[in-house]
Amino acid sequence: MHFHSERRLDGDILERHFTLGEIPGILWTPGSTPAPLILAGHPGGLDGMYPRLLSRSVHAAQHGFASLSIELPGGGDRARVPALERARADLRAALAAGDPVDGIVDALVLPLVELAVPEWQAALDAALSLPEIDDGPVGFSGGVIAIGIRLAVVEPRIAAALLFAGSYVPHSMFEEARRVSIPLHVLLQWDDAGNDRQLALDLFDAFGSAEKTLHANLGGHTGVPAFEADASIRFFLRHLRGRGDH
Amino acid sequence: MHFHSERRLDGDILERHFTLGEIPGILWTPGSTPAPLILAGHPGGLDGMYPRLLSRSVHAAQHGFASLSIELPGGGDRARVPALERARADLRAALAAGDPVDGIVDALVLPLVELAVPEWQAALDAALSLPEIDDGPVGFSGGVIAIGIRLAVVEPRIAAALLFAGSYVPHSMFEEARRVSIPLHVLLQWDDAGNDRQLALDLFDAFGSAEKTLHANLGGHTGVPAFEADASIRFFLRHLRGRGDH
Repeated sequence: MHFHSERRLDGDILERHFTLGEIPGILWTPGSTPAPLILAGHPGGLDGMYPRLLSRSVHAAQHGFASLSIELPGGGDRARVPALERARADLRAALAAGDPVDGIVDALVLPLVELAVPEWQAALDAALSLPEIDDGPVGFSGGVIAIGIRLAVVEPRIAAALLFAGSYVPHSMFEEARRVSIPLHVLLQWDDAGNDRQLALDLFDAFGSAEKTLHANLGGHTGVPAFEADASIRFFLRHLRGRGDH
Repeated sequence: MHFHSERRLDGDILERHFTLGEIPGILWTPGSTPAPLILAGHPGGLDGMYPRLLSRSVHAAQHGFASLSIELPGGGDRARVPALERARADLRAALAAGDPVDGIVDALVLPLVELAVPEWQAALDAALSLPEIDDGPVGFSGGVIAIGIRLAVVEPRIAAALLFAGSYVPHSMFEEARRVSIPLHVLLQWDDAGNDRQLALDLFDAFGSAEKTLHANLGGHTGVPAFEADASIRFFLRHLRGRGDH
């Protein structure tokens, strides 16, 4: 984890940009450390997502949490992944033509999950070795939901996940969803035009966790109400227990 | 509103039992008054519901809210309402036999709404005339959901409603749900055996409110997680604005 730039934000929050091998990433830490860590997921394109990630991470830091995000495989300035590029082009074409997308979603999301999850685990290894990061339970927050599901299944250090039901999920991942056992907080935008509401409800139903909560709100993909930020932090305060400012 | 007994609870909360005509009721007020009011709905049988109403009302009082509840028509020690008694018996028989209940739900819930809503409005009139109750916007919290829907439509003093999707709703009330325009916070128990999940989701979809949030949690009818109490209070703090302790 090579830090190459840093700046201080209000409230003594430190934002540092790093590379981990060829992967760019950002780490936000609150004034008070060691801080419990939240992995901040996103759909790819770290620069474009920066304003939203910054807002989430500053809010988390105000409640004592560190946040880490890395670029996805093939996203932003990273080397293209030809299979993902083809699948994305196929998906755009199918959506434009109104054709079914199931097979294309599999071709897009399953390789993305396979490539991305080990990278997030490597970033987790690196972050947890820093003295400013608490080495206790870790949270995952955001999308791509399929990456969050896989991490929840394979990565025992992740103790709680906030999943954004706003991206495609291969049907084969429903079986994986049944194996998730950590507490989940699922956000669903009720009128998300790019998302299948019934599929999101079915996925929520499939999760094996004994504690799972669905928060559905009106509005489109980017219209999550501001008050959900507080609900999200409360979820992490409950489950990354003895940590943060609760 | 005739108060006939009172006791002080922790935190200087005052619990007073009253009658309004023949209707028994309870008013909880916090130490700091005038306090904004939440109408605390329930399925009938004030004595049996007392422990849960007490818990909700003490929590609300800790955040600066007064709570008021009255017995439902035909509930508790009130005079039986023959039409409701017949409908309840029919419902029990139909459920035991596995027969469809739609017509029986109409026969049970529609008259209950017609009888109950004017009583809650009368209780609201009486409470708002008390110096210890703030005469600004009022909240409704709980069930019977059909009573909450009707109150949300006809009673302009109610500015926000927390509805518990855990009781029967006549199909005719979906049209009424479309006319609801106040902010809603809807609680759904995902595995509530006595409740139709799809009907609850359809009802959430039908509400006309520009701000509506659904919180779904695992567990049965009485298994709402404790953390939802905080989410409920935050909803009222947002919408009974300038009031309470936010």
